[in-house]
Amino acid sequence: MKLSQLFTKTTKDVPADETARNAQLLIQAGFIHKEMAGVYAYLPLGKRVLDNIVQIIREEMDALEGQEISLTALQNKDVWETSGRWSDEAIDVWFRTKVAGGGELGLAPTHEEPLTNLMRRFIGSYKDLPAYPYQFQTKFRNELRAKSGLMRGREFLMKDLYSFSLGEPEHEVFYEKAAKAYQKVFDRLGIGESTYKTFASGGSFSKYSHEYQTISPVGEDTIYVHQAKRIAINKEVYNDEVLAELGLNKDELVEKTAVEVGNIFTLGTKYSEALGLTFSAEDGSVRPVFMGSYGIGPSRLMGLIAEHFADDKGLVWPENIAPAKVYIAQLGTNSVVLEQATELYNRLTATGVEVLYDDRDLRPGEKFADADLMGIPYRVIVSDKTQAAGNYEIKARQAEVAEHVSYEQLLRMLGMST
Amino acid sequence: MKLSQLFTKTTKDVPADETARNAQLLIQAGFIHKEMAGVYAYLPLGKRVLDNIVQIIREEMDALEGQEISLTALQNKDVWETSGRWSDEAIDVWFRTKVAGGGELGLAPTHEEPLTNLMRRFIGSYKDLPAYPYQFQTKFRNELRAKSGLMRGREFLMKDLYSFSLGEPEHEVFYEKAAKAYQKVFDRLGIGESTYKTFASGGSFSKYSHEYQTISPVGEDTIYVHQAKRIAINKEVYNDEVLAELGLNKDELVEKTAVEVGNIFTLGTKYSEALGLTFSAEDGSVRPVFMGSYGIGPSRLMGLIAEHFADDKGLVWPENIAPAKVYIAQLGTNSVVLEQATELYNRLTATGVEVLYDDRDLRPGEKFADADLMGIPYRVIVSDKTQAAGNYEIKARQAEVAEHVSYEQLLRMLGMST
Repeated sequence: MKLSQLFTKTTKDVPADETARNAQLLIQAGFIHKEMAGVYAYLPLGKRVLDNIVQIIREEMDALEGQEISLTALQNKDVWETSGRWSDEAIDVWFRTKVAGGGELGLAPTHEEPLTNLMRRFIGSYKDLPAYPYQFQTKFRNELRAKSGLMRGREFLMKDLYSFSLGEPEHEVFYEKAAKAYQKVFDRLGIGESTYKTFASGGSFSKYSHEYQTISPVGEDTIYVHQAKRIAINKEVYNDEVLAELGLNKDELVEKTAVEVGNIFTLGTKYSEALGLTFSAEDGSVRPVFMGSYGIGPSRLMGLIAEHFADDKGLVWPENIAPAKVYIAQLGTNSVVLEQATELYNRLTATGVEVLYDDRDLRPGEKFADADLMGIPYRVIVSDKTQAAGNYEIKARQAEVAEHVSYEQLLRMLGMST
Repeated sequence: MKLSQLFTKTTKDVPADETARNAQLLIQAGFIHKEMAGVYAYLPLGKRVLDNIVQIIREEMDALEGQEISLTALQNKDVWETSGRWSDEAIDVWFRTKVAGGGELGLAPTHEEPLTNLMRRFIGSYKDLPAYPYQFQTKFRNELRAKSGLMRGREFLMKDLYSFSLGEPEHEVFYEKAAKAYQKVFDRLGIGESTYKTFASGGSFSKYSHEYQTISPVGEDTIYVHQAKRIAINKEVYNDEVLAELGLNKDELVEKTAVEVGNIFTLGTKYSEALGLTFSAEDGSVRPVFMGSYGIGPSRLMGLIAEHFADDKGLVWPENIAPAKVYIAQLGTNSVVLEQATELYNRLTATGVEVLYDDRDLRPGEKFADADLMGIPYRVIVSDKTQAAGNYEIKARQAEVAEHVSYEQLLRMLGMST
């Protein structure tokens, strides 16, 4: 995309009403817009980042044989009353609304109930199991405070997969596969090293659930990390009994603050019993379906990754989720420079490389500042000077110095065959 | 996808609580699930159809130099009060909700206000214009009645593009380009022939707006069609004065019922004046931005297309939005048949052809009924009989008879080079 055509602009002004660094930077870079606390719109470059994160998660869910669906925001009160979660005591973040003609609806804070209810249409026999529907869907949570930017929203995007299994043994096998898929997602997003599978409190059917916690100074959670074993324990279950059970020694654990970026949870038959989701087993008995839930928040991840990699110049995106791989800064407007920059832009985009081409009439310093603030992995300069020297200048976002290279070298450095 | 793995199932039972044919068929085929009147979840095959429709629209919006964004569902009351549209008198389909800690929010029934307000960040000078942001976003409308299936929802997907121009002349040029893009969308969706650009009532800035109306016996609108000129007039502006102005003769027009599938509207400076979206013109004067809006409802289109092409056997999808192109019905389970069917499935999917492979243990009639109900463009039979004869049986969804063809012919008929 040519920046002369992009309708957003960057700003040096730090938004006065934002305390979260991720939101400050994403707003300054023109990636998002704050509608109100905890409610953000995604602008073209922000939407690309979010879409890239979604696509990575989608690929890993498809690899688990997940089947993508899309449930609704508006929720039927009756279904949630059946499970006992309509009340404020059960879920304290409901948004509720009145429907024309009478009655009340909720805005989905999560989707266990509607999906369990829906699956009654399709699950009747052991032959119908297992099933792994998932979705990317907006969740609404009426948070009293929302001051962590994209990391805690009142309206935010969630990937939630649910497993429906014959029983606990089949569930356990899938649960472990899902755990591996989650680690792969975080690896691909560039935060695998900083993310720990963390033991957290479970429910009636499992002593523990597992959270994926990414170390971050702005995290709201406290975890105890075992670096070598790549696991951690959430403070909520950090006690001698649990340590003994997990065979961990207090001395080997380090206290950290972290952000929960995903969680996997054994639901057991809690919802299937409440809502009557049963199946006829091979032996003729009728049993409740055994369930699990698997959540990742793409918008929270975007906020976390923004915050995690940022430096004093701005955002720093990992290459596979960046809104573009290359930022071409065209300096000067003589016809040969223009021609070279255009040719490079066309060449890269023709082979599917995403490029932001800064063709605007701005000073070099302004272009460099934007390239840095936006966090584009590679900045390429095409200028009177490079043209005269017969080369191109390339600099990785976090490199100290730039390199001057030939056209062929440039293409190779950007991963293209020449 | 193998049907033995797909978690949805078809049913012969017509849903008792649905009067709309589109919803009946889509529910029976397992494409959607009704949460409540006017609120539907999309299941794997339905989601594919919706995604295919979205992608066609996206390509045409990108060709118009639209830039994709994503605004929010939760709406700030203050912004809508500024434009005078918070009240029930202005918009009678608001869903409203209370926010924790006090205050009231709305669920977006449309997005002129938040976008106009947002664009104040980016538009200050004539150099910042034009701009064409667009989105695919859920709209919420608190309809008293919602009984047309996907064609009138309380929660539904909308593509809305907004144009921000220097003034009316620049706007007019884009408006005509958008009109052409819209026609292209409907052509690609297979309903171009039945869809008419229809003169409807305008606003303060333009005598007319334009709707795209598709002829349908279940339409809620009445239009007067000029077949040869490929235009129509909505009943609301059908009078002698308008006829004279458009140079049309009553005798040449035919009354039809139709469904509105899109509309384009000159907003002028209504919202930019109300919300203070101005720019400095080249001559130094400060002017309100001139706006237009361009809507298409992908979920309504899905309902309309389902209803439009359906026959007594079920759905009939145009090839480019079908959830799969080919339905392989494997009949019999001897090892050669299994091998042939699997080979064909792998061959087609490897080259990007979407296939539903019916590997279930069902009677032939049940498989044929499902292939028809789901509306898959081509049904291919691999059976003991075809295997013995050394051929394959292929039938287009609406063809009277099947053909027996060689493997090479089959691949050619499915658009593959051999």
